[in-house]
Amino acid sequence: MSNVGKSTNILWHNCPIGQSERQKLLGQKGCVIWITGLSGSGKSTLACALSRELHCSGHLSYVLDGDNLRHGLNRDLSFKAEDRAENIRRVGEVAKLFADAGTICIASLISPYRRDRDACRALLPESRFIEVFMDFPLEICEARDPKGLYKLARTGKIKGFTGIDDPYESPVNSEIVIKMVDGECPSPKAMAKHVLCYLEENGYLQD
Amino acid sequence: MSNVGKSTNILWHNCPIGQSERQKLLGQKGCVIWITGLSGSGKSTLACALSRELHCSGHLSYVLDGDNLRHGLNRDLSFKAEDRAENIRRVGEVAKLFADAGTICIASLISPYRRDRDACRALLPESRFIEVFMDFPLEICEARDPKGLYKLARTGKIKGFTGIDDPYESPVNSEIVIKMVDGECPSPKAMAKHVLCYLEENGYLQD
Repeated sequence: MSNVGKSTNILWHNCPIGQSERQKLLGQKGCVIWITGLSGSGKSTLACALSRELHCSGHLSYVLDGDNLRHGLNRDLSFKAEDRAENIRRVGEVAKLFADAGTICIASLISPYRRDRDACRALLPESRFIEVFMDFPLEICEARDPKGLYKLARTGKIKGFTGIDDPYESPVNSEIVIKMVDGECPSPKAMAKHVLCYLEENGYLQD
Repeated sequence: MSNVGKSTNILWHNCPIGQSERQKLLGQKGCVIWITGLSGSGKSTLACALSRELHCSGHLSYVLDGDNLRHGLNRDLSFKAEDRAENIRRVGEVAKLFADAGTICIASLISPYRRDRDACRALLPESRFIEVFMDFPLEICEARDPKGLYKLARTGKIKGFTGIDDPYESPVNSEIVIKMVDGECPSPKAMAKHVLCYLEENGYLQD
């Protein structure tokens, strides 16, 4: 019996079926693939393409999309600083549950601050958190502007927009960096293959 | 682009791989089995036994245990009324994600108020939320008192304890009711088989 956070008298229940049993069933290792980068850097595109590649090779993955979660679990959170941190914390905690379930969990969030990303990494055992940095210049992302948000930020209609009037702290030790090759942006499929190769080479796609 | 809850300018991203593809991969239908009942009514015991039975028949399930989640996602929540409601809301939202992932998600929480349980039910499409009511008399649960909590509640060391000085609103239309048979409590395996039969008969264990 213990006190944790704001809860008193709570007990940890262990089940006989744990992560290792579920991994055997699925033939893969549960992990979190955390895709970080500016708005318009292709996070959702990579998440979907990777999910498709994994599915085609018989692997179970699940995408946690920052925007989508704001329709449900995180609908009580705004974009002010403390709510953004709480948003990322919750996604990290849910991603951890999905990894524990044996799933390859693909989290796709701007997650601009190193501190928040590292807090999510620290939730998981070593090697279960794979950071993917979408390393594209602001100009490229802003030129794409798929949601028209940069335009709104430049005209002051959105405040605190990452890359414009709020910082993006680039990762320094990401497991995977996706960037331009010979001045060209890689295709969705090429980006997905890049991550897939990492997963294969590091034994995630077998139990 | 839409405003949802406290978030502005968020867009729903659809992936080509959705619930139906994941269900085909897993050979089952994603759903939420919501186990409700008094402390000591056997919710965790049923959750674990069911998880084992499902695993043995090749099905992927994942247990969301109310107490366990208070170590992580819900560590910022206390046991005061509004926090208990938020605790249940978040578990409902996460359970929905697991069902969307194709998993048979087993949520085990006292969840004493009908309003909170029904709000979770309303998050999911019809037939994807299966309520299991652990219908055992207070005297039986209190006599078991596996965590010694009833003793603390009776001596006033815990306030607002469900069944003692806080109400438990029994479900009226649960899909499954687990209760005494001829004055005897069913075994964990018997309870699990009861739920398993329901899942089989209603087509959840095939895609």
